Amino acid sequence: MSQKKKMKTLAITEKTKISRSAKRGSYEIDTINAILDEGLFCHIAYEHDGQPMMIPTAYCRINDKIYIHGSVGSHFMRMLAEGKDICFVVSLIDGLVLARSAFHHSVNYRSVIAFAKAEVVTDEDERWNALEQITEHLVPNRWADVREPYKNEMQKTMILSFTLDEASAKIRTGDPIDDEEDYALPVWAGILPLKVRASAPIPDPRLIPSVSIPEYLHNYKRGEK
Amino acid sequence: MSQKKKMKTLAITEKTKISRSAKRGSYEIDTINAILDEGLFCHIAYEHDGQPMMIPTAYCRINDKIYIHGSVGSHFMRMLAEGKDICFVVSLIDGLVLARSAFHHSVNYRSVIAFAKAEVVTDEDERWNALEQITEHLVPNRWADVREPYKNEMQKTMILSFTLDEASAKIRTGDPIDDEEDYALPVWAGILPLKVRASAPIPDPRLIPSVSIPEYLHNYKRGEK
Repeated sequence: MSQKKKMKTLAITEKTKISRSAKRGSYEIDTINAILDEGLFCHIAYEHDGQPMMIPTAYCRINDKIYIHGSVGSHFMRMLAEGKDICFVVSLIDGLVLARSAFHHSVNYRSVIAFAKAEVVTDEDERWNALEQITEHLVPNRWADVREPYKNEMQKTMILSFTLDEASAKIRTGDPIDDEEDYALPVWAGILPLKVRASAPIPDPRLIPSVSIPEYLHNYKRGEK
Repeated sequence: MSQKKKMKTLAITEKTKISRSAKRGSYEIDTINAILDEGLFCHIAYEHDGQPMMIPTAYCRINDKIYIHGSVGSHFMRMLAEGKDICFVVSLIDGLVLARSAFHHSVNYRSVIAFAKAEVVTDEDERWNALEQITEHLVPNRWADVREPYKNEMQKTMILSFTLDEASAKIRTGDPIDDEEDYALPVWAGILPLKVRASAPIPDPRLIPSVSIPEYLHNYKRGEK
Protein backbone atom coordinates (compact mmCIF):
# COMPACT_ATOMS: atom_id res chain seq x y z
CA MET A 1 0.00 0.00 0.00
CA SER A 2 1.16 3.52 -0.77
CA GLN A 3 2.79 5.29 2.14
CA LYS A 4 2.53 8.62 0.33
CA LYS A 5 1.08 11.28 2.58
CA LYS A 6 -2.05 12.79 1.15
CA MET A 7 -1.66 16.55 0.75
CA LYS A 8 -4.31 18.65 2.41
CA THR A 9 -6.09 20.69 -0.21
CA LEU A 10 -8.70 23.44 -0.27
CA ALA A 11 -11.99 22.97 -2.05
CA ILE A 12 -12.11 24.50 -5.53
CA THR A 13 -14.76 27.19 -5.87
CA GLU A 14 -16.10 29.11 -8.82
CA LYS A 15 -13.82 32.03 -7.90
CA THR A 16 -10.65 30.01 -7.35
CA LYS A 17 -11.07 27.63 -10.27
CA ILE A 18 -8.10 28.25 -12.57
CA SER A 19 -9.18 28.50 -16.19
CA ARG A 20 -5.94 29.53 -17.99
CA SER A 21 -2.96 27.15 -17.78
CA ALA A 22 -4.86 25.04 -15.26
CA LYS A 23 -1.91 22.67 -14.85
CA ARG A 24 -0.07 25.50 -13.08
CA GLY A 25 -2.73 25.67 -10.39
CA SER A 26 -2.61 24.16 -6.92
CA TYR A 27 -5.02 24.00 -4.03
CA GLU A 28 -2.57 22.30 -1.67
CA ILE A 29 -2.39 24.06 1.64
CA ASP A 30 1.36 23.45 2.07
CA THR A 31 2.05 24.91 -1.38
CA ILE A 32 -0.10 27.98 -0.67
CA ASN A 33 1.47 28.51 2.77
CA ALA A 34 5.04 28.31 1.47
CA ILE A 35 4.33 31.16 -0.98
CA LEU A 36 2.58 33.22 1.69
CA ASP A 37 5.48 32.76 4.10
CA GLU A 38 8.09 33.82 1.54
CA GLY A 39 6.23 36.88 0.24
CA LEU A 40 7.21 40.22 1.77
CA PHE A 41 3.96 42.02 1.12
CA CYS A 42 0.58 41.47 -0.47
CA HIS A 43 -1.83 43.42 -2.65
CA ILE A 44 -5.44 43.68 -1.51
CA ALA A 45 -8.21 44.74 -3.87
CA TYR A 46 -11.64 45.90 -2.79
CA GLU A 47 -14.46 47.91 -4.25
CA HIS A 48 -15.55 51.38 -3.19
CA ASP A 49 -18.51 53.10 -4.82
CA GLY A 50 -18.25 50.82 -7.83
CA GLN A 51 -14.53 51.53 -8.30
CA PRO A 52 -11.91 48.78 -7.82
CA MET A 53 -9.21 49.94 -5.40
CA MET A 54 -5.95 48.26 -4.42
CA ILE A 55 -3.35 48.64 -1.69
CA PRO A 56 0.03 46.94 -1.19
CA THR A 57 0.56 46.15 2.48
CA ALA A 58 2.45 43.97 4.97
CA TYR A 59 0.85 40.82 6.38
CA CYS A 60 1.51 37.61 8.21
CA ARG A 61 0.03 34.14 8.21
CA ILE A 62 -0.83 32.35 11.44
CA ASN A 63 -2.17 28.85 10.74
CA ASP A 64 -5.05 29.35 8.30
CA LYS A 65 -5.45 33.09 8.86
CA ILE A 66 -3.95 36.18 7.26
CA TYR A 67 -3.50 39.29 9.40
CA ILE A 68 -2.91 42.86 8.27
CA HIS A 69 -2.56 46.02 10.34
CA GLY A 70 -2.97 49.74 9.87
CA SER A 71 -4.03 52.93 11.50
CA VAL A 72 -7.55 53.10 12.88
CA GLY A 73 -7.78 56.31 10.82
CA SER A 74 -6.86 54.59 7.55
CA HIS A 75 -9.57 54.81 4.91
CA PHE A 76 -8.43 51.44 3.55
CA MET A 77 -8.66 49.69 6.92
CA ARG A 78 -12.04 51.20 7.65
CA MET A 79 -13.38 50.11 4.27
CA LEU A 80 -12.23 46.54 4.84
CA ALA A 81 -13.55 46.55 8.42
CA GLU A 82 -17.04 46.93 6.95
CA GLY A 83 -16.77 43.34 5.75
CA LYS A 84 -16.35 44.11 2.06
CA ASP A 85 -15.33 41.34 -0.29
CA ILE A 86 -11.60 41.41 -0.85
CA CYS A 87 -9.18 39.83 -3.27
CA PHE A 88 -5.76 39.14 -1.74
CA VAL A 89 -2.71 38.34 -3.88
CA VAL A 90 0.93 37.51 -3.09
CA SER A 91 3.20 37.29 -6.16
CA LEU A 92 6.79 36.08 -6.30
CA ILE A 93 8.89 36.35 -9.46
CA ASP A 94 11.49 33.61 -9.71
CA GLY A 95 12.89 34.25 -13.14
CA LEU A 96 12.47 35.49 -16.66
CA VAL A 97 11.82 32.76 -19.20
CA LEU A 98 13.64 33.60 -22.41
CA ALA A 99 12.38 31.57 -25.31
CA ARG A 100 13.72 31.56 -28.86
CA SER A 101 10.49 33.16 -30.07
CA ALA A 102 9.02 36.39 -28.71
CA PHE A 103 5.65 34.65 -28.38
CA HIS A 104 6.87 32.03 -25.91
CA HIS A 105 8.62 34.39 -23.51
CA SER A 106 7.25 33.96 -20.03
CA VAL A 107 7.97 34.41 -16.35
CA ASN A 108 8.58 31.81 -13.66
CA TYR A 109 6.42 32.86 -10.76
CA ARG A 110 4.56 31.63 -7.71
CA SER A 111 1.39 33.43 -6.68
CA VAL A 112 -1.47 32.95 -4.29
CA ILE A 113 -4.92 34.45 -4.67
CA ALA A 114 -7.50 34.39 -1.88
CA PHE A 115 -11.06 35.64 -1.62
CA ALA A 116 -12.48 36.61 1.74
CA LYS A 117 -14.15 39.19 3.89
CA ALA A 118 -11.91 40.70 6.56
CA GLU A 119 -12.95 40.91 10.21
CA VAL A 120 -11.75 43.28 12.88
CA VAL A 121 -9.68 41.42 15.48
CA THR A 122 -10.75 42.53 18.95
CA ASP A 123 -9.14 39.99 21.29
CA GLU A 124 -6.10 41.76 22.78
CA ASP A 125 -3.91 38.65 22.88
CA GLU A 126 -4.71 37.86 19.26
CA ARG A 127 -4.01 41.50 18.29
CA TRP A 128 -0.65 41.46 20.07
CA ASN A 129 0.30 38.13 18.53
CA ALA A 130 -0.63 39.39 15.06
CA LEU A 131 1.58 42.48 15.44
CA GLU A 132 4.43 40.31 16.67
CA GLN A 133 4.05 37.95 13.72
CA ILE A 134 3.72 40.75 11.14
CA THR A 135 7.09 42.05 12.40
CA GLU A 136 8.58 38.55 12.50
CA HIS A 137 7.29 37.90 8.99
CA LEU A 138 9.37 40.82 7.69
CA VAL A 139 12.42 40.17 9.89
CA PRO A 140 12.55 36.90 11.84
CA ASN A 141 13.84 37.31 15.41
CA ARG A 142 13.25 41.07 15.40
CA TRP A 143 10.42 41.26 17.94
CA ALA A 144 12.54 40.24 20.95
CA ASP A 145 14.87 43.19 20.29
CA VAL A 146 12.44 46.06 19.97
CA ARG A 147 10.54 48.29 22.32
CA GLU A 148 7.11 46.66 22.49
CA PRO A 149 3.94 48.60 21.67
CA TYR A 150 2.51 50.96 24.29
CA LYS A 151 -1.17 50.79 25.12
CA ASN A 152 -1.84 54.02 23.18
CA GLU A 153 -0.03 52.58 20.13
CA MET A 154 -2.23 49.48 20.33
CA GLN A 155 -5.26 51.74 20.49
CA LYS A 156 -4.17 53.52 17.30
CA THR A 157 -3.74 50.21 15.46
CA MET A 158 -6.44 48.20 13.72
CA ILE A 159 -5.85 44.52 13.05
CA LEU A 160 -7.90 42.71 10.43
CA SER A 161 -7.91 39.01 9.70
CA PHE A 162 -9.45 36.62 7.25
CA THR A 163 -9.44 32.87 6.88
CA LEU A 164 -7.72 31.15 3.97
CA ASP A 165 -10.56 28.90 2.96
CA GLU A 166 -11.05 30.15 -0.59
CA ALA A 167 -7.57 30.31 -2.09
CA SER A 168 -5.37 28.86 -4.79
CA ALA A 169 -1.76 28.98 -5.91
CA LYS A 170 -0.45 29.32 -9.44
CA ILE A 171 3.10 28.37 -10.28
CA ARG A 172 5.25 28.32 -13.41
CA THR A 173 8.63 26.65 -13.21
CA GLY A 174 11.17 25.28 -15.64
CA ASP A 175 12.56 25.96 -19.06
CA PRO A 176 11.07 27.86 -21.98
CA ILE A 177 8.73 25.86 -24.21
CA ASP A 178 9.40 26.73 -27.84
CA ASP A 179 7.79 25.54 -31.02
CA GLU A 180 9.64 22.40 -32.08
CA GLU A 181 11.09 23.97 -35.24
CA ASP A 182 12.46 26.94 -33.26
CA TYR A 183 14.84 24.80 -31.17
CA ALA A 184 17.22 24.87 -34.12
CA LEU A 185 17.51 28.67 -34.02
CA PRO A 186 20.81 30.18 -32.85
CA VAL A 187 19.05 32.27 -30.20
CA TRP A 188 20.09 32.10 -26.54
CA ALA A 189 17.27 30.60 -24.50
CA GLY A 190 16.97 29.78 -20.84
CA ILE A 191 16.12 31.27 -17.47
CA LEU A 192 17.36 34.46 -15.89
CA PRO A 193 16.79 33.75 -12.17
CA LEU A 194 15.56 36.69 -10.10
CA LYS A 195 15.36 37.00 -6.35
CA VAL A 196 14.80 39.69 -3.75
CA ARG A 197 18.13 40.11 -2.00
CA ALA A 198 19.34 42.24 0.86
CA SER A 199 22.52 44.25 0.83
CA ALA A 200 24.49 45.40 3.89
CA PRO A 201 22.31 46.97 6.63
CA ILE A 202 22.63 50.76 6.87
CA PRO A 203 22.73 51.94 10.49
CA ASP A 204 20.55 54.89 11.50
CA PRO A 205 22.74 58.01 11.88
CA ARG A 206 21.51 58.34 15.46
CA LEU A 207 22.27 54.72 16.40
CA ILE A 208 24.13 54.32 19.71
CA PRO A 209 27.67 53.43 18.55
CA SER A 210 28.00 50.39 20.81
CA VAL A 211 25.05 48.61 19.13
CA SER A 212 26.20 46.18 16.48
CA ILE A 213 24.25 44.68 13.59
CA PRO A 214 22.15 41.81 14.90
CA GLU A 215 22.84 38.28 13.73
CA TYR A 216 19.43 37.98 12.05
CA LEU A 217 20.29 40.74 9.56
CA HIS A 218 23.38 38.92 8.31
CA ASN A 219 22.50 36.80 5.30
CA TYR A 220 18.86 37.89 5.39
CA LYS A 221 17.01 35.77 2.84
CA ARG A 222 13.42 35.13 1.84
CA GLY A 223 12.21 31.60 1.37
CA GLU A 224 15.42 29.83 2.36
CA LYS A 225 16.19 28.29 5.72
CA MET B 1 14.28 84.73 -11.41
CA SER B 2 14.29 81.02 -10.69
CA GLN B 3 15.67 78.85 -13.45
CA LYS B 4 14.19 75.76 -11.81
CA LYS B 5 12.35 73.67 -14.33
CA LYS B 6 8.74 73.21 -13.40
CA MET B 7 7.93 69.50 -13.12
CA LYS B 8 5.00 68.29 -15.17
CA THR B 9 2.33 66.93 -12.86
CA LEU B 10 -0.99 65.16 -13.21
CA ALA B 11 -4.17 66.68 -11.87
CA ILE B 12 -5.22 65.33 -8.47
CA THR B 13 -8.61 63.64 -8.55
CA GLU B 14 -10.88 62.31 -5.82
CA LYS B 15 -9.54 58.82 -6.49
CA THR B 16 -5.84 59.70 -6.59
CA LYS B 17 -5.84 62.16 -3.68
CA ILE B 18 -3.56 60.67 -1.05
CA SER B 19 -5.10 60.84 2.40
CA ARG B 20 -2.63 58.88 4.58
CA SER B 21 0.96 60.19 4.81
CA ALA B 22 0.17 62.73 2.12
CA LYS B 23 3.75 64.05 2.13
CA ARG B 24 4.81 60.74 0.56
CA GLY B 25 2.59 61.37 -2.44
CA SER B 26 3.63 62.66 -5.84
CA TYR B 27 1.80 63.53 -9.02
CA GLU B 28 4.94 64.31 -11.00
CA ILE B 29 5.00 62.50 -14.30
CA ASP B 30 8.77 61.89 -14.22
CA THR B 31 8.49 60.34 -10.75
CA ILE B 32 5.60 58.12 -11.81
CA ASN B 33 7.34 57.05 -15.03
CA ALA B 34 10.59 56.12 -13.26
CA ILE B 35 8.70 53.70 -11.00
CA LEU B 36 6.75 52.24 -13.92
CA ASP B 37 9.91 51.70 -15.93
CA GLU B 38 11.71 49.93 -13.06
CA GLY B 39 8.83 47.64 -12.06
CA LEU B 40 8.87 44.14 -13.54
CA PHE B 41 5.18 43.47 -13.36
CA CYS B 42 1.95 45.09 -12.20
CA HIS B 43 -1.20 44.05 -10.41
CA ILE B 44 -4.53 44.93 -12.02
CA ALA B 45 -7.78 44.87 -10.05
CA TYR B 46 -11.24 44.85 -11.58
CA GLU B 47 -14.71 43.86 -10.56
CA HIS B 48 -16.69 40.90 -11.83
CA ASP B 49 -20.25 40.25 -10.63
CA GLY B 50 -19.63 42.39 -7.56
CA GLN B 51 -16.44 40.54 -6.62
CA PRO B 52 -13.04 42.30 -6.70
CA MET B 53 -10.57 40.29 -8.77
CA MET B 54 -6.85 40.82 -9.28
CA ILE B 55 -4.16 39.58 -11.65
CA PRO B 56 -0.38 40.10 -11.68
CA THR B 57 0.84 40.61 -15.24
CA ALA B 58 3.63 42.02 -17.40
CA TYR B 59 3.30 45.48 -18.93
CA CYS B 60 5.17 48.27 -20.61
CA ARG B 61 4.90 52.03 -20.72
CA ILE B 62 5.07 53.93 -23.99
CA ASN B 63 4.84 57.68 -23.41
CA ASP B 64 1.67 58.19 -21.37
CA LYS B 65 0.18 54.76 -22.04
CA ILE B 66 0.40 51.38 -20.35
CA TYR B 67 0.10 48.26 -22.48
CA ILE B 68 -0.62 44.71 -21.36
CA HIS B 69 -1.04 41.56 -23.41
CA GLY B 70 -2.65 38.18 -23.08
CA SER B 71 -4.45 35.45 -24.91
CA VAL B 72 -7.64 36.37 -26.75
CA GLY B 73 -9.14 33.46 -24.79
CA SER B 74 -8.15 34.87 -21.41
CA HIS B 75 -11.11 35.58 -19.15
CA PHE B 76 -9.14 38.43 -17.57
CA MET B 77 -8.37 40.10 -20.91
CA ARG B 78 -11.94 39.71 -22.11
CA MET B 79 -13.29 41.24 -18.90
CA LEU B 80 -10.99 44.25 -19.25
CA ALA B 81 -11.78 44.58 -22.95
CA GLU B 82 -15.36 45.36 -21.97
CA GLY B 83 -14.12 48.71 -20.68
CA LYS B 84 -14.45 47.91 -16.97
CA ASP B 85 -12.93 50.28 -14.44
CA ILE B 86 -9.51 49.04 -13.42
CA CYS B 87 -7.05 49.82 -10.68
CA PHE B 88 -3.41 49.34 -11.72
CA VAL B 89 -0.58 49.18 -9.19
CA VAL B 90 3.20 48.80 -9.48
CA SER B 91 5.01 48.35 -6.14
CA LEU B 92 8.75 48.37 -5.51
CA ILE B 93 10.22 47.52 -2.10
CA ASP B 94 13.52 49.29 -1.47
CA GLY B 95 14.19 48.31 2.11
CA LEU B 96 12.93 47.34 5.52
CA VAL B 97 12.87 50.21 8.01
CA LEU B 98 13.91 48.89 11.40
CA ALA B 99 12.98 51.28 14.17
CA ARG B 100 13.78 50.93 17.88
CA SER B 101 10.08 50.47 18.61
CA ALA B 102 7.85 47.85 17.02
CA PHE B 103 5.29 50.55 16.28
CA HIS B 104 7.58 52.60 14.03
CA HIS B 105 8.79 49.75 11.84
CA SER B 106 8.09 50.53 8.21
CA VAL B 107 9.09 49.80 4.65
CA ASN B 108 10.83 52.00 2.12
CA TYR B 109 8.85 51.62 -1.06
CA ARG B 110 7.88 53.30 -4.31
CA SER B 111 4.48 52.59 -5.76
CA VAL B 112 2.23 53.91 -8.51
CA ILE B 113 -1.52 53.59 -8.61
CA ALA B 114 -3.56 54.40 -11.71
CA PHE B 115 -7.28 54.33 -12.45
CA ALA B 116 -8.48 53.81 -15.98
CA LYS B 117 -10.59 51.85 -18.40
CA ALA B 118 -8.62 49.65 -20.77
CA GLU B 119 -9.17 49.70 -24.52
CA VAL B 120 -8.45 47.02 -27.08
CA VAL B 121 -5.59 48.07 -29.35
CA THR B 122 -6.51 47.29 -32.95
CA ASP B 123 -3.87 49.14 -34.99
CA GLU B 124 -1.38 46.48 -36.14
CA ASP B 125 1.67 48.72 -35.86
CA GLU B 126 0.70 49.78 -32.36
CA ARG B 127 0.07 46.14 -31.39
CA TRP B 128 3.47 45.07 -32.73
CA ASN B 129 5.21 47.95 -31.00
CA ALA B 130 3.50 47.13 -27.71
CA LEU B 131 4.64 43.49 -27.86
CA GLU B 132 8.16 44.62 -28.67
CA GLN B 133 8.17 47.04 -25.76
CA ILE B 134 6.65 44.53 -23.28
CA THR B 135 9.57 42.21 -24.13
CA GLU B 136 12.09 45.06 -23.97
CA HIS B 137 10.63 46.15 -20.64
CA LEU B 138 11.49 42.75 -19.14
CA VAL B 139 14.84 42.36 -20.92
CA PRO B 140 16.25 45.37 -22.75
CA ASN B 141 17.78 44.50 -26.15
CA ARG B 142 16.05 41.12 -26.29
CA TRP B 143 13.68 41.80 -29.19
CA ALA B 144 16.37 42.02 -31.86
CA ASP B 145 17.54 38.49 -30.96
CA VAL B 146 14.31 36.54 -31.02
CA ARG B 147 12.10 34.99 -33.64
CA GLU B 148 9.43 37.62 -34.23
CA PRO B 149 5.73 36.81 -33.88
CA TYR B 150 3.99 34.99 -36.71
CA LYS B 151 0.69 36.30 -37.98
CA ASN B 152 -1.21 33.49 -36.22
CA GLU B 153 0.54 34.35 -32.95
CA MET B 154 -0.52 37.97 -33.35
CA GLN B 155 -4.08 36.79 -33.95
CA LYS B 156 -4.02 34.81 -30.68
CA THR B 157 -2.82 37.85 -28.75
CA MET B 158 -4.93 40.65 -27.32
CA ILE B 159 -3.30 43.97 -26.51
CA LEU B 160 -4.99 46.39 -24.14
CA SER B 161 -3.90 49.92 -23.34
CA PHE B 162 -4.91 52.72 -21.05
CA THR B 163 -3.77 56.27 -20.60
CA LEU B 164 -1.97 57.41 -17.45
CA ASP B 165 -4.07 60.46 -16.79
CA GLU B 166 -5.37 59.52 -13.37
CA ALA B 167 -2.36 58.30 -11.42
CA SER B 168 -0.18 59.04 -8.43
CA ALA B 169 3.03 57.80 -6.85
CA LYS B 170 3.69 57.15 -3.18
CA ILE B 171 7.23 56.92 -1.86
CA ARG B 172 8.85 56.37 1.52
CA THR B 173 12.58 56.88 1.79
CA GLY B 174 15.08 57.42 4.56
CA ASP B 175 15.76 56.39 8.12
CA PRO B 176 13.36 55.12 10.77
CA ILE B 177 11.51 57.81 12.71
CA ASP B 178 11.41 56.85 16.38
CA ASP B 179 9.83 58.57 19.35
CA GLU B 180 12.43 60.97 20.71
CA GLU B 181 12.90 59.10 24.00
CA ASP B 182 13.48 55.80 22.15
CA TYR B 183 16.66 57.03 20.44
CA ALA B 184 18.51 56.29 23.69
CA LEU B 185 17.58 52.57 23.52
CA PRO B 186 20.35 50.08 22.76
CA VAL B 187 18.38 48.60 19.85
CA TRP B 188 19.88 48.34 16.36
CA ALA B 189 17.98 50.62 14.01
CA GLY B 190 18.43 51.42 10.36
CA ILE B 191 17.61 50.20 6.89
CA LEU B 192 17.96 46.73 5.40
CA PRO B 193 18.14 47.52 1.66
CA LEU B 194 16.32 45.08 -0.63
CA LYS B 195 16.50 44.76 -4.36
CA VAL B 196 15.46 42.35 -7.08
CA ARG B 197 18.68 40.84 -8.37
CA ALA B 198 19.52 38.39 -11.11
CA SER B 199 21.87 35.46 -10.73
CA ALA B 200 23.72 33.69 -13.53
CA PRO B 201 21.55 32.84 -16.55
CA ILE B 202 20.68 29.13 -16.82
CA PRO B 203 20.85 27.90 -20.43
CA ASP B 204 18.00 25.79 -21.77
CA PRO B 205 19.12 22.12 -21.94
CA ARG B 206 18.31 22.15 -25.66
CA LEU B 207 20.31 25.30 -26.40
CA ILE B 208 22.60 25.01 -29.43
CA PRO B 209 26.06 24.75 -27.82
CA SER B 210 27.63 27.48 -29.95
CA VAL B 211 25.21 30.15 -28.63
CA SER B 212 26.73 32.15 -25.79
CA ILE B 213 25.00 34.23 -23.14
CA PRO B 214 24.11 37.61 -24.65
CA GLU B 215 25.73 40.76 -23.33
CA TYR B 216 22.39 42.16 -22.10
CA LEU B 217 22.00 39.30 -19.59
CA HIS B 218 25.31 40.06 -17.93
CA ASN B 219 24.77 42.43 -15.00
CA TYR B 220 21.03 42.57 -15.57
CA LYS B 221 19.64 45.21 -13.23
CA ARG B 222 16.33 46.97 -12.69
CA GLY B 223 16.26 50.73 -12.31
CA GLU B 224 19.97 51.32 -12.86
CA LYS B 225 21.65 52.45 -16.02
